[in-house]
Amino acid sequence: MSKYNFYAGPAILPQEALDQAKQAVIDFDNMGLSILEISHRSKNFVAVMDRAEALVRELYNVNDEYAILFLSGGASTQFFMAPMNLLNENETAGYLDTGTWASKAIKEAKAFGNIDVLASSKEENYCYYPKDYAVPNNLKYLHLTSNNTIYGTQLHVWPDTDVPLVCDMSSDIFSCEIPLEKFDLIYAGAQKNMGPAGVTLVIVKRGILDKVDRYIPTILRYSTHDEKKSMYNTPPVFPIYVSMLTMEWILKNGGVNDMYERNKAKANLLYNEIDRNTLFYNNINREDRSLMNVTFHMHNEGQLADFISFAEKRNCVGLKGHRSIGGLRASIYNAMSLEGVQALVDTMAEFEKQNA
Amino acid sequence: MSKYNFYAGPAILPQEALDQAKQAVIDFDNMGLSILEISHRSKNFVAVMDRAEALVRELYNVNDEYAILFLSGGASTQFFMAPMNLLNENETAGYLDTGTWASKAIKEAKAFGNIDVLASSKEENYCYYPKDYAVPNNLKYLHLTSNNTIYGTQLHVWPDTDVPLVCDMSSDIFSCEIPLEKFDLIYAGAQKNMGPAGVTLVIVKRGILDKVDRYIPTILRYSTHDEKKSMYNTPPVFPIYVSMLTMEWILKNGGVNDMYERNKAKANLLYNEIDRNTLFYNNINREDRSLMNVTFHMHNEGQLADFISFAEKRNCVGLKGHRSIGGLRASIYNAMSLEGVQALVDTMAEFEKQNA
Repeated sequence: MSKYNFYAGPAILPQEALDQAKQAVIDFDNMGLSILEISHRSKNFVAVMDRAEALVRELYNVNDEYAILFLSGGASTQFFMAPMNLLNENETAGYLDTGTWASKAIKEAKAFGNIDVLASSKEENYCYYPKDYAVPNNLKYLHLTSNNTIYGTQLHVWPDTDVPLVCDMSSDIFSCEIPLEKFDLIYAGAQKNMGPAGVTLVIVKRGILDKVDRYIPTILRYSTHDEKKSMYNTPPVFPIYVSMLTMEWILKNGGVNDMYERNKAKANLLYNEIDRNTLFYNNINREDRSLMNVTFHMHNEGQLADFISFAEKRNCVGLKGHRSIGGLRASIYNAMSLEGVQALVDTMAEFEKQNA
Repeated sequence: MSKYNFYAGPAILPQEALDQAKQAVIDFDNMGLSILEISHRSKNFVAVMDRAEALVRELYNVNDEYAILFLSGGASTQFFMAPMNLLNENETAGYLDTGTWASKAIKEAKAFGNIDVLASSKEENYCYYPKDYAVPNNLKYLHLTSNNTIYGTQLHVWPDTDVPLVCDMSSDIFSCEIPLEKFDLIYAGAQKNMGPAGVTLVIVKRGILDKVDRYIPTILRYSTHDEKKSMYNTPPVFPIYVSMLTMEWILKNGGVNDMYERNKAKANLLYNEIDRNTLFYNNINREDRSLMNVTFHMHNEGQLADFISFAEKRNCVGLKGHRSIGGLRASIYNAMSLEGVQALVDTMAEFEKQNA
C-alpha cells in the first residue's frame, strides 16, 4: 500500500511523473543512455527545456514580454538576486513580512536599496495575512510571499495597486490562476508543486532587465539566462526534466484552474475536520488559511507523538509541524489526492474515538 | 547492447550508481517514498549528506581544517564566488589562462580585486599547459583549471609555490591523488567524474573564510553553508544522492589512486591509436595531454561526419568535438571502462582499413 505523503517540501509528486523519471534514469528517450549522462546540448535534452518553457507559458498564459528561466540556488538565491537586478541603491521597494521566508527576503534585500516593510504579522506569530496597509506609488516593486509554508497562511486576494509585484510563489506555484500582468517577477523553488529540489523557476518581465547601475556577476544577471535560454552553463538537468513531467501532469489534469478546484475541495475537507474534531484546532485567521499547508495543533500536546505514530501506521506520513512552531502540518499540494486527505481525516476521527 | 558514452559532460556514470538511483526514484531506503519527495531534513537524507561528506574526506584524505560543501550553480558560480569570498579590492590574485573556462574565471574575478594573469596559452589555441612562469609571493592565491575539457590539456605537475592554490577541478575531480595541503579552495561541477548536473563540490580551508571587507549576500558566503552543513536551504537532493553513489563506486574500486592507474591505461591506449592511425592526429603538447578529454582530428576533415556515424553504429557515442574547436573528442572519465576505450580504438582501426 502506498504512503500518503504530507511532507512540506521536497514534497509529493505525481506517480506518473515518478514512473517516467525512473525510466529516464536508465534509458531516456530510447537513446540507450541515462538522462543523467547525456549532454545538456543534445537535441533530446534541448527538447525537454523547450517543452518545460512552453508548459509554463501555457499553464499561466505567459507571453513573450516575459522570460521563463530555470535557475538553481532556490528561492533563497532569489531573495538577493531580485533586488540586485531590479533595485538601485537610492530606490525603494515595499515588502510584506508574512513569515520566516518573507523576513529572510527582507533581510537580503536591505543590502541593495531602501526597503519599506509595509506590514507585518510577526507580532501575532504570523497567524494572519496583512491586508490593511497602503502601497506608496513611488515603490519600484512590492514583494510578496504568496503562501507561508511554515505558518499555513496564504494570500487569497492580490493587492489593488499599480506598483509591479514581485512574488515568491515557492509553495503555491501552479495551484491557482494568477493575474500575470500585475507581476514584474515571480520566482519559485521547485520542490513543492513543480518538481524535485534543485531547480528554481523565474518568470520575469524582459523590459525591466539590465536597468540598474551596479555591477552584477554574469551568472547572477537574469538577462544572461534569458539570452542563453537557461543554458549559459550546465543546467540542473534531472530536476528540470522531472519538473517538465510534473507540469505535463498538471496540464493533463485540467491546468491551474482545475488544480484550484481540487485544492479547495481537499482543504475544505481537512479544515472542516480540524474545526469539528474535539482534539484538534487551527489558529490561523480563517480567511487567510492556506490551501497548501494546513497547520494544526492538539489541545493536549501530550497526545502529539501518539497521533503522529497512529497516523504513520495508517500510511499518513510527514505530519510533524515545522520545528519553529511545533504541532502538526499537512501539506496538500497539487499532487495530493482527495483520497489521501480523506485518509488523514478518517485517521483524525478514529484517533478522536479512541482518545477523546 | 549498451552504449559507450564519450560525452564531455553531463557524462558517463557507473551503471551501479544508475541502478541504485533508479530504485530510489520509486522507493528510497525502503521508505515507500521516492527520494524526490522526502524532506531534506528527514534522517534518511541527512544520512546521505553525511555519507557524501565522509566520502569526499576519505577519497582525498581531507581533515577538519577544510569544509566540504555541496552547493548549486556550477563552476560558473564559483568563478565569482571564490574571489568574492577570498579577495579584497586592493589584493592581487594570480590566474593561469589555460582555456575557455579559465578565461571566464578571470573575467568574473576582475570585479573583485587585482587579477594578474601569470601565463596564457591562448595565442596557440590553448594547445599546451603553461609551465614557464613566476609566481609572485604577494598573491592572495593562484587560480588554476586543472583540466581543460574543451582543448584536452591537463596539469600534470602542480606549481612549486607557497602561494595557496584555488583550483577548478570540474573535469578531473577524483581522477588522481592531489597534494591537498597546497589548496585553499577546490571546486568542481559534479557533471563529469562525480555525479549528474545540479550540484557543485567545494572543498575550502576554514581558516580563510569571512576575512574580506565587502558585504556578501548570506547564501553566497561559504561560511553560511559550512555552518549549516550545506542545508542552509533545500539542497539539490537527487544530484547529491547520485554523487554519493558515484563516490561509493570510486571508493569500492580502489579510490583515486586506482582510478589514476586505470585512467592512464585508458588514455595510453587511445593516444597510441591516434598517433599510430594514419587518419587521425592530436595537436596537444604531448606532456600536457589530458587523461580525461582526448581531443583529436582527422587529416581529411571531409571524413569526420562519416567517422562519427560509423562509430555510432558501433555504439560509440558523444564523439563530436566542442563546437569552438571542431574535430573529435573522447571523454574517458573514471566511469569509462577500458573495454569502452578498446571499442573506440577498434572502431578507429576498422575505419582506417576501410577508408585509408
